[in-house]
Amino acid sequence: MELKDYETFEKELFEMLDNKQIKHFKETIEDMNEHDIATFISNLPRKKIAVVFRLLPKSISADVFANLEVEEQQLIIECITDKELGEIIEELYLDDAVDMLEELPANVVKRVMRTATSETRTLINQYLEYPEKSAGSIMTAEYVDLKKYMNVREAIARIRRIGKDRETIYTCFVISSDRKLEGVITVKDMLLSDDEAIIGDIMDTNVIYATTTDDQEEVSELISEYDLLAVPVVDKEGRLVGIVTVDDVIDVMQEELTEDIEKMAGITPSDKPYSKTGVGDIWKSRIPWLMFLMLSATFTSMIINRFEDALATCVVLTGFIPMLMDTGGNSGAQSSTAVIRSLSLGDTEPKDIFKVIWKEIRVAVLCGLTLSAVNFVKMFFVDRMLLGNSDVNVFVALTVSLTLIFVVVFAKVVGSTLPLAAEKLGIDPAVMASPLITTITDAVSLLIYFSLAGVVLKI
Amino acid sequence: MELKDYETFEKELFEMLDNKQIKHFKETIEDMNEHDIATFISNLPRKKIAVVFRLLPKSISADVFANLEVEEQQLIIECITDKELGEIIEELYLDDAVDMLEELPANVVKRVMRTATSETRTLINQYLEYPEKSAGSIMTAEYVDLKKYMNVREAIARIRRIGKDRETIYTCFVISSDRKLEGVITVKDMLLSDDEAIIGDIMDTNVIYATTTDDQEEVSELISEYDLLAVPVVDKEGRLVGIVTVDDVIDVMQEELTEDIEKMAGITPSDKPYSKTGVGDIWKSRIPWLMFLMLSATFTSMIINRFEDALATCVVLTGFIPMLMDTGGNSGAQSSTAVIRSLSLGDTEPKDIFKVIWKEIRVAVLCGLTLSAVNFVKMFFVDRMLLGNSDVNVFVALTVSLTLIFVVVFAKVVGSTLPLAAEKLGIDPAVMASPLITTITDAVSLLIYFSLAGVVLKI
Repeated sequence: MELKDYETFEKELFEMLDNKQIKHFKETIEDMNEHDIATFISNLPRKKIAVVFRLLPKSISADVFANLEVEEQQLIIECITDKELGEIIEELYLDDAVDMLEELPANVVKRVMRTATSETRTLINQYLEYPEKSAGSIMTAEYVDLKKYMNVREAIARIRRIGKDRETIYTCFVISSDRKLEGVITVKDMLLSDDEAIIGDIMDTNVIYATTTDDQEEVSELISEYDLLAVPVVDKEGRLVGIVTVDDVIDVMQEELTEDIEKMAGITPSDKPYSKTGVGDIWKSRIPWLMFLMLSATFTSMIINRFEDALATCVVLTGFIPMLMDTGGNSGAQSSTAVIRSLSLGDTEPKDIFKVIWKEIRVAVLCGLTLSAVNFVKMFFVDRMLLGNSDVNVFVALTVSLTLIFVVVFAKVVGSTLPLAAEKLGIDPAVMASPLITTITDAVSLLIYFSLAGVVLKI
Repeated sequence: MELKDYETFEKELFEMLDNKQIKHFKETIEDMNEHDIATFISNLPRKKIAVVFRLLPKSISADVFANLEVEEQQLIIECITDKELGEIIEELYLDDAVDMLEELPANVVKRVMRTATSETRTLINQYLEYPEKSAGSIMTAEYVDLKKYMNVREAIARIRRIGKDRETIYTCFVISSDRKLEGVITVKDMLLSDDEAIIGDIMDTNVIYATTTDDQEEVSELISEYDLLAVPVVDKEGRLVGIVTVDDVIDVMQEELTEDIEKMAGITPSDKPYSKTGVGDIWKSRIPWLMFLMLSATFTSMIINRFEDALATCVVLTGFIPMLMDTGGNSGAQSSTAVIRSLSLGDTEPKDIFKVIWKEIRVAVLCGLTLSAVNFVKMFFVDRMLLGNSDVNVFVALTVSLTLIFVVVFAKVVGSTLPLAAEKLGIDPAVMASPLITTITDAVSLLIYFSLAGVVLKI
């Protein structure tokens, strides 16, 4: 048998729709997986989306629905009957339903909640109350629970009975009569044990778990560090209330990383992908930092103005200001990036601050000396001899080269210290990234430059 | 029963070791999971690592070994007998063994290979030949294969028989007699089907798969998009040669993201974590870009020198050079970061280039106008009135503010275009990030500034 990929299916499906071969279309789509069907539907023209969605067999429509973006979900909700909507909501895993409801407009949420059963409605409301980005807000209630006294045969029978609409069956959770979490056991453990073995004897009691108020990032660290398929989430009393599965954690990781990168570039993070964010929203996410950084540059202007007379006596110095500032900015950005990333991977902790500073000072001295030496030679051979700028003499080259060393050291120390200090103070270290450090380094670079010029060039 | 966490175990274990309660130590450690034991061992003083490792029960020593860093693995290898080493190598999953061998020094690799069975050695050699960061290099050979004609009972019996040392049993792969991949089936599908159901009838033939030469990033996209636990890897002839599991993909994702972020900050990526990288290596990873960027700043010096006379007639303009350059750099960095991230999430493609540029131009005009207006007011009220800089007049403020608009638009267009062009040319877009864009923007900002100064101030 040939393995078919998505492109082949897509082409065929488009042709069938164009030729109105609805029966053939339905048969083909049953062979595809939900993610591909969702991709196919989201590539359709907007007004066709709901029509094609209603052609899907009932058995897969909720899974496909869960794979769509909120915009498309909303389009569909607006075109289907309350009965159809109710069925989809009941079929959805709770975490997918909650994700969607958090982003839908209020009037659509109202209609969705009205069509849900009162049981589902209560659960959804409870989930919506957990703080945003907490374990509680991303967990789902569809897990398999077992009792300690069951044997493997009974446990597997239970999985076969209730497993169909559980998000994962591979990790099962053993709870007491008051729902306290007592252990976990995997299907692998069960299959590799005797049918008569008692769950309480073979389960793992050293459980890795999260509590509802833990940050989603901590949950994703647990899953990635311990290579788990699912983590149980317990409430304050140790009662099992939900689970978070590895596929949700992958989404969380991508989301958190996008946020970090955006913050590091001075962009206010948003949940929407770039391609779907409007011009106005992008402007709103970018202007605050640009404005703040532009206004803070008033200090650099003040410094330059204060040394205006010195600059006038040795105009050639002006030409090297951009190079010094950029090198400072780049050096600082390297250090802050390395430290921010190391912090978020759990490789460095705020208590390592002196170790990190000492390391950065040594790296900075090495970098500073290398750059300084190359710059000295370059100023002499390129600027003075090749470009014929006779104002560049030994003393000018010395001033610029010495400044370089100090600027690089200063930038790297600030670049590594600020993120660590932020982490310690409970501020997100990603905010202490290049843009802010550039602004600080700029001002200090100029002060160093003019002070050294005063000493070396006596101006 | 109380849930015990790692800290409790660690304290107890340290006490037991100090008091030489070896029997008690062995019992306690059996209750812990491999990841925590590995953490415990790696926190020990270096000379105790091998001693404590040898106290571990045989059943878990390979799993713990796989969770250690290469440095610690090497320490242990150097202290154990060939027989012990051979046993560990046979127990390790092939992908973990290959990961380790890729980083160990040659003489240690030799000894490891000598202790492995000839079968394992052949497999390892084959894996080591796949290109670095390909699906082949991260896959593992420990999967469960089934035949189409089996029924569910027979399949489950096979899983129970061979499942013990398979990396995952939850996704099983159905292959023909010549090892061609024909379908996949999950344990969940089997448990929810009748015992007599035939695998060929209930398996999924629309298989998501990778080929050995695919990049590891593509494999991780497959797993994260389709929410899979494992992806099969086939060779050119469509024969199943290995699988990649979700836990490996999480590591790949982290690794790729660290690389992207480092490249974006002008750091040559390395595989070692920051805390374990020496000063010399950090210097080597940072100096190339710093050097390149410092030398390219020669252009900005040349531009400033060329306009030296103009600057001399209106010295106040110098003070605003840093602000203009920084705002340009920050604006460009925002755009390049947004586009790079969007590209790597698959949200934007190179063919969207005109859509992206048009979006960025509109955002840039909005940002430029806002900054420009605020700057005009600020220069008048803060610089002229508050700070008493009488050289700042309407024309100077106008020059700076107009420049700002052009600089922001230019920076955002360059910042968004370069990463897209790079992707199209097959260069990693992350290299086109802030440092490079800053340097380009600097030079152009100065040209715009001096040209506008010529027009507005007639200098």
